[in-house]
Amino acid sequence: MTIITLTTDFGYRDGFVGMMKGVIWGICPTAQIADISHEVSAQDVAQGALLLGRAARYFAAGSVHVAVVDPGVGTARRGLAARIGGQYFVGPDNGLCTLLVEAALRDGEECVFMALDKPAYWLPRVSRTFHGRDIFAPVAAHLACGVELEALGTPISDVALKQQPAPQRTADGWRASVIAVDTFGNLGTNLRWQDVVGGSVILRIKGRVINGLSVTFGEHAPGELIALVDSDEHIAVAEVNGSAAKTLTAGVGEVVEVRFADTD
Amino acid sequence: MTIITLTTDFGYRDGFVGMMKGVIWGICPTAQIADISHEVSAQDVAQGALLLGRAARYFAAGSVHVAVVDPGVGTARRGLAARIGGQYFVGPDNGLCTLLVEAALRDGEECVFMALDKPAYWLPRVSRTFHGRDIFAPVAAHLACGVELEALGTPISDVALKQQPAPQRTADGWRASVIAVDTFGNLGTNLRWQDVVGGSVILRIKGRVINGLSVTFGEHAPGELIALVDSDEHIAVAEVNGSAAKTLTAGVGEVVEVRFADTD
Amino acid sequence: MTIITLTTDFGYRDGFVGMMKGVIWGICPTAQIADISHEVSAQDVAQGALLLGRAARYFAAGSVHVAVVDPGVGTARRGLAARIGGQYFVGPDNGLCTLLVEAALRDGEECVFMALDKPAYWLPRVSRTFHGRDIFAPVAAHLACGVELEALGTPISDVALKQQPAPQRTADGWRASVIAVDTFGNLGTNLRWQDVVGGSVILRIKGRVINGLSVTFGEHAPGELIALVDSDEHIAVAEVNGSAAKTLTAGVGEVVEVRFADTD
Repeated sequence: MTIITLTTDFGYRDGFVGMMKGVIWGICPTAQIADISHEVSAQDVAQGALLLGRAARYFAAGSVHVAVVDPGVGTARRGLAARIGGQYFVGPDNGLCTLLVEAALRDGEECVFMALDKPAYWLPRVSRTFHGRDIFAPVAAHLACGVELEALGTPISDVALKQQPAPQRTADGWRASVIAVDTFGNLGTNLRWQDVVGGSVILRIKGRVINGLSVTFGEHAPGELIALVDSDEHIAVAEVNGSAAKTLTAGVGEVVEVRFADTD
Repeated sequence: MTIITLTTDFGYRDGFVGMMKGVIWGICPTAQIADISHEVSAQDVAQGALLLGRAARYFAAGSVHVAVVDPGVGTARRGLAARIGGQYFVGPDNGLCTLLVEAALRDGEECVFMALDKPAYWLPRVSRTFHGRDIFAPVAAHLACGVELEALGTPISDVALKQQPAPQRTADGWRASVIAVDTFGNLGTNLRWQDVVGGSVILRIKGRVINGLSVTFGEHAPGELIALVDSDEHIAVAEVNGSAAKTLTAGVGEVVEVRFADTD
Repeated sequence: MTIITLTTDFGYRDGFVGMMKGVIWGICPTAQIADISHEVSAQDVAQGALLLGRAARYFAAGSVHVAVVDPGVGTARRGLAARIGGQYFVGPDNGLCTLLVEAALRDGEECVFMALDKPAYWLPRVSRTFHGRDIFAPVAAHLACGVELEALGTPISDVALKQQPAPQRTADGWRASVIAVDTFGNLGTNLRWQDVVGGSVILRIKGRVINGLSVTFGEHAPGELIALVDSDEHIAVAEVNGSAAKTLTAGVGEVVEVRFADTD
């Protein structure tokens, strides 16, 4: 009973995700299918890579992660199937697997990439605009039901990666930036918890100053602006029982200055 | 392990879909359930029929498709269970199965319709306003777990159909119309790819002119308005990396004039 | 094949729900997972309790209901696992299980509550802000795959409850209030069908008067404002093929005066 996850920018309204599930179960009726997100912003590959990368680590080894945010569909961009550490990835070769690859490299795990060129594992008719349904779903289903990765294509090593911006070291701290805004309006930055550990910090975002990291939301009054370590172990800015994104009118790319206050 | 699909206008917030899954698994614990869409516009039977029809063909033969867009719930309108070609349908008799029926007739396949009148296969208490939960979900679950279609009701042949408007032939082409707007803002028309094949065409929509069909999105600049064959094999109007619906302020019903340019 | 349901305020975009499914299937690969709702209004515990309570009764005995609307995450608020009548509940101890408890008490069924304090059944690393993933999902998965409830924590009896406001008896009827607005804009009140049965009633909401209860939507003209018994067996105010919430600009808390008209 292999798990297949789906991450796309298709939304939930048009039935595109349902079609992919139909195709998957037609080939591999025992697959368990989990939706990670279908509300990636349209054509936003970096956001899709982030959502997939953060969720994938909570799935059992051997899971097959299908991601389709695909502005290049129908062009010469390649399709991929890959074993990335203990996980499988299927989708366009446009950077969607970046966080999976980074995690595998960090852990010293092997990555094997195949460019998809074996139509025997696709639907008989392949549209120009919906490879999620016609190529990636059937390839993932074959993988989940036992086809060897190596049978699905031709080995390659030069896959596209789309890395998040890194935080910059400054004289007295970090110049970080917001890389994710969640449904509550919490602003997740690219600064890892480990990079500020042990020090007390002062954050500045859009002219507002936040003193220190809070442990959690519930210890502050509603409406208060706080900084904390989020569930992805990065520094985030949040409004208690509110939306920091809305209050600060801040989104992805917004700069967050982090200053170490120890030495003052 | 039979598949049951769900297509409704219930949205995802109120737990109505969850209740239907609870009812289904209470009767048929091994059913696989796929959501096709729960964001059909409220009471829009034609849209529900279109979304269901386009998705259903990607599911294995023997799948049970439950659709509930049901402005007549609680009135004398009948409930249906049907074998339509290789697929099963359960829902109100108001046209939701139209595309399934059209496809079966096109392929010369048999259709068997039963009006639901056997309360033994329903929940013990039937509300006046939620037959999706109280009648259609349990009937679908019984079908999926082996009850014969013929046991569920009384045979009928005069089912309601709700056909999409057909494109009109003109002196030099077609007068088509938009029948679907997807989540990207692509405008899907009722004109099939086969109806323009081989000719080069000029499209006109809301005063804008589009020359020829593109093969896919990625070969054009962002913001460009293009026409192409969509994943349902119909002619669609799209804005590359944008929303044609928004840019043109166009929706379902908008006219698209298609002129064959060969002979010029 | 045990069923686990999920009710949260996480939305569908950020992958939080997907992570929970990954965690669950990592521990209990055979669990069937049904989403009840992930669109509970942020931090609205009362709404979460209502949605869960109304849906849970349609699931087979032995189902495990996980609910996470958790403004107190990371504070001293306790986590719970409970057997409430024939159903299981896992989530924060903040009132989310209120309707389950009320139903069990009404039916004379037993309730057993355990405060979660056995980290052996949690993820190895527990964040401060996402106990849904790190504690409640793994606890539910262990329950679903056979761990005894009693092994998961320490028995308690003083759980938090968050009751809906009760309708008030008046000289000639009831003073009810809206407790739920569904996706169609129907206004569900706290007045049960049994409380008005047999009498003819006149309702007044925001200055509008509605005479009598209708049997269903389809017997009235589109746009008409009606009152009826909803699928949860409470009195609701609805606009036929429209949104009563929008037309009346009414929401949760709005007063509905109900007068018995028999004796006039």
